[in-house]
Amino acid sequence: MTSDPNCFYCTRSQKLHDLMVEVVHLHESTVYLLKDQTHRGRCVVAYRDHRTELFQLSEAERNTFMKEVSAVAEAIYGVTRCDKVNYAVFGDGVPHFHVHIVPKKKDGAEWGKPFTTGVNTPTLLPETETTSLIRELKTRIEKSVSSG
Amino acid sequence: MTSDPNCFYCTRSQKLHDLMVEVVHLHESTVYLLKDQTHRGRCVVAYRDHRTELFQLSEAERNTFMKEVSAVAEAIYGVTRCDKVNYAVFGDGVPHFHVHIVPKKKDGAEWGKPFTTGVNTPTLLPETETTSLIRELKTRIEKSVSSG
Repeated sequence: MTSDPNCFYCTRSQKLHDLMVEVVHLHESTVYLLKDQTHRGRCVVAYRDHRTELFQLSEAERNTFMKEVSAVAEAIYGVTRCDKVNYAVFGDGVPHFHVHIVPKKKDGAEWGKPFTTGVNTPTLLPETETTSLIRELKTRIEKSVSSG
Repeated sequence: MTSDPNCFYCTRSQKLHDLMVEVVHLHESTVYLLKDQTHRGRCVVAYRDHRTELFQLSEAERNTFMKEVSAVAEAIYGVTRCDKVNYAVFGDGVPHFHVHIVPKKKDGAEWGKPFTTGVNTPTLLPETETTSLIRELKTRIEKSVSSG
């Protein structure tokens, strides 16, 4: 178990809670809903400990992690009825391995362009809507990872 | 085997050859080096047939595909000595499932920002350098996917 005291994913510090809300804790990852819901349903899947590159995971870790990433993408797709899911791992600034999963709609924000973070004014959902969105995503994700 | 006659990854049309050069053909994917080498070593790993979302792959397909993606990322990391690898699947315009693998350097282009495509003037390498880069990547990728 590797951990970095300066990493907000490792420490689960206030910075993390300012940016996102936990959806569900899985075997190899934790899923968070971003507070900025410019793309409604946008989540992050963060690896369970401090790795920085995909090839630092063992084959078994990678397979389970990617099953979880796939389950989250399918849940977001199902809940949002988006036209395309975008997936990205950047991490120049925050290298802890985490995948952005971003639903895109043809008539929505940033269609046909890479999605951005913190560039536009954040879209915040009412608390009740956040709660119901998290519940729906969590149900679908748990069902998906426990099957097959 | 699904194929889309309007998709340049499926048809391997002139459009594909205008944008990239084949590095190696693997079990679940084909790896291409982008002609625009603004990020030296930047590749695309394209799924072998026309799927558009990660969750359309079976578990076995996903595991093999991600092993190949991981091998390509490690090869690029080894060859370029970059500081961080970025990975992204967009596809709003070109939905055929393909992963951009982009080495980033602290003193290089777009550090700390999402990488772009076709925004800046392309950086083209001399043909001899392209050939040697492809050879080095191919050797590392084949070694990696054939082990373990």
